[in-house]
Amino acid sequence: MKKLMNDSTKIVSQFLDGLVASHGNLIKRLEGTEVIVRKEMIPNKVGLISGGGSGHEPAHAGYVGTGMLDAAIAGEVFTSPGADQFLAAIQAADQGSGVLLIIKNYNGDVMNAEMAMEMAEAKGIETAMVVVNDDIAVDDVENRRGIAGTVLIHKVAGAKAEQLASLQEVKEVAERAISNVRSMSVALQACTLPSASKPSFSLSDTQMEVGIGIHGEQGMSREDVLTSYEIAELLVSHIEKEVDVTKPVYVLVNGMGSTPLLEQYVFANDTVSILKKNNVHVEKMLVGDYMTSLDMAGISLTLFAIDEELHSLLQSKATTIQWTEVSQ
Amino acid sequence: MKKLMNDSTKIVSQFLDGLVASHGNLIKRLEGTEVIVRKEMIPNKVGLISGGGSGHEPAHAGYVGTGMLDAAIAGEVFTSPGADQFLAAIQAADQGSGVLLIIKNYNGDVMNAEMAMEMAEAKGIETAMVVVNDDIAVDDVENRRGIAGTVLIHKVAGAKAEQLASLQEVKEVAERAISNVRSMSVALQACTLPSASKPSFSLSDTQMEVGIGIHGEQGMSREDVLTSYEIAELLVSHIEKEVDVTKPVYVLVNGMGSTPLLEQYVFANDTVSILKKNNVHVEKMLVGDYMTSLDMAGISLTLFAIDEELHSLLQSKATTIQWTEVSQ
Repeated sequence: MKKLMNDSTKIVSQFLDGLVASHGNLIKRLEGTEVIVRKEMIPNKVGLISGGGSGHEPAHAGYVGTGMLDAAIAGEVFTSPGADQFLAAIQAADQGSGVLLIIKNYNGDVMNAEMAMEMAEAKGIETAMVVVNDDIAVDDVENRRGIAGTVLIHKVAGAKAEQLASLQEVKEVAERAISNVRSMSVALQACTLPSASKPSFSLSDTQMEVGIGIHGEQGMSREDVLTSYEIAELLVSHIEKEVDVTKPVYVLVNGMGSTPLLEQYVFANDTVSILKKNNVHVEKMLVGDYMTSLDMAGISLTLFAIDEELHSLLQSKATTIQWTEVSQ
Repeated sequence: MKKLMNDSTKIVSQFLDGLVASHGNLIKRLEGTEVIVRKEMIPNKVGLISGGGSGHEPAHAGYVGTGMLDAAIAGEVFTSPGADQFLAAIQAADQGSGVLLIIKNYNGDVMNAEMAMEMAEAKGIETAMVVVNDDIAVDDVENRRGIAGTVLIHKVAGAKAEQLASLQEVKEVAERAISNVRSMSVALQACTLPSASKPSFSLSDTQMEVGIGIHGEQGMSREDVLTSYEIAELLVSHIEKEVDVTKPVYVLVNGMGSTPLLEQYVFANDTVSILKKNNVHVEKMLVGDYMTSLDMAGISLTLFAIDEELHSLLQSKATTIQWTEVSQ
């Protein structure tokens, strides 16, 4: 499998260097680590960090900046960063008011983040954690994975922290957001790891994988490929059961890495039509590559039921590589 | 070949509807056309339009908005829009000070744009045209194609028009920019048209196509796949011959549609290293999907030699779907 790279063992580090070379006005790399840090810190603001395995770009380093994250940790591809990396990020993000970790629900990430929190507390840094589990494709609620909805948690928690709210207040708004955000995905083609010669599983020219995760793992079922409209109906019907759609919703249509915008907006158009037909009030559509899975072809759909405060936090200004004024 | 779509003959129209459903604050669709128009027009500002075949998203509709285009025409995939569509865009963009057309150098686009200009002049609208030909992979300078560098022309002309410069002044700055912007591309995998069952040409697992265009046409040579660094060296060595790199440069690393950001930033890192080694002053790196070719895997590199005015125009505020504050 051909990739634009030099060495699969250096791809993450070279990505981070490229990111800093391109956006040195916003971010810097913490020397000797895979941690990207916001350049202008705000004294007494709660620090916000996120991270996990790489392969989901622009997540998470693309969300470091004003109004979102203070630091992001980039593990090896699809591999949790070690506790030492989380600790370095916590220390860099701490501005005297504590640090909130926004972690996707994977065992390795949660375990390493918890270890780092203990080490940080021992150094006198107050920490707290929220765990995002928006992927409804996993039946067992305890094991639900964090996927694209995580980016919306970055946004609301980031905006709340920017208001100089306390660690407890930022954590509460993040938890309220997490309980109102649900996602589900479909893949037309699996991804290929930089170190591998073929995709993590194979789909024929007539098949799609429903309920796919963001790590090349197989989904809940394999089915005949449907049209964009039919896929939108399928995903909306599942997600609607788990979100309070009597409230207004933010909709995130997320490309999985190799899905052209031409197709993403066709799907967005179908999604908004179906939601309107179902009398759901769509407050805003976000469309693009927010949380990818290397070169996977496919899409995830996220619905986020909002209240007045969440809406205001979503609309507040953010300046990061991926989430910009136009996203709002 | 699987695509997220409903009907290949409706993909462009449904894309445009999805775009408007998502960004209705910025843009609207001109009824009965494939023309996207900026929502807030500025009286007496020179109108700026661009367009061509679809399949290059976010180009060109993604650049309609404050500080860039007033209207964009989306033809069928890889097919020039008709003169009537260009005319509708000219009429919508005209605010009393004339309209500049920014056209990529393809026969059909140039011919249809010229016909529309004649029709517009007959209706009393002053028009002018600039033709972008940044792709140095074509030996014959007359036939050089317009590719990703076109977006930089949108930006500088758009900023100049926003200053309420005259049609002649906007045209002159666009022409100066065009003469200083050069690009070249590499594909690892060809694209597949929505109506087709297989890619427009086939590359083995060890081959790449050098000097590829943005319409699935073959390039100047087929070679063994190189590393990202070697590809950057190859493209820089060709482009440097055609751009005055004693001046500071803007660098645009452009994904062709299915190239993950992880890989794009590795390539950006290699490019900036090589340019610095060559003592080229890199003023700014832009990285992302700016001008794609459906689901092609690959990259284009653009160097833009700037002077003081061009730099200032590049830095001025733009609010469009793709080009945002962070891009600057």
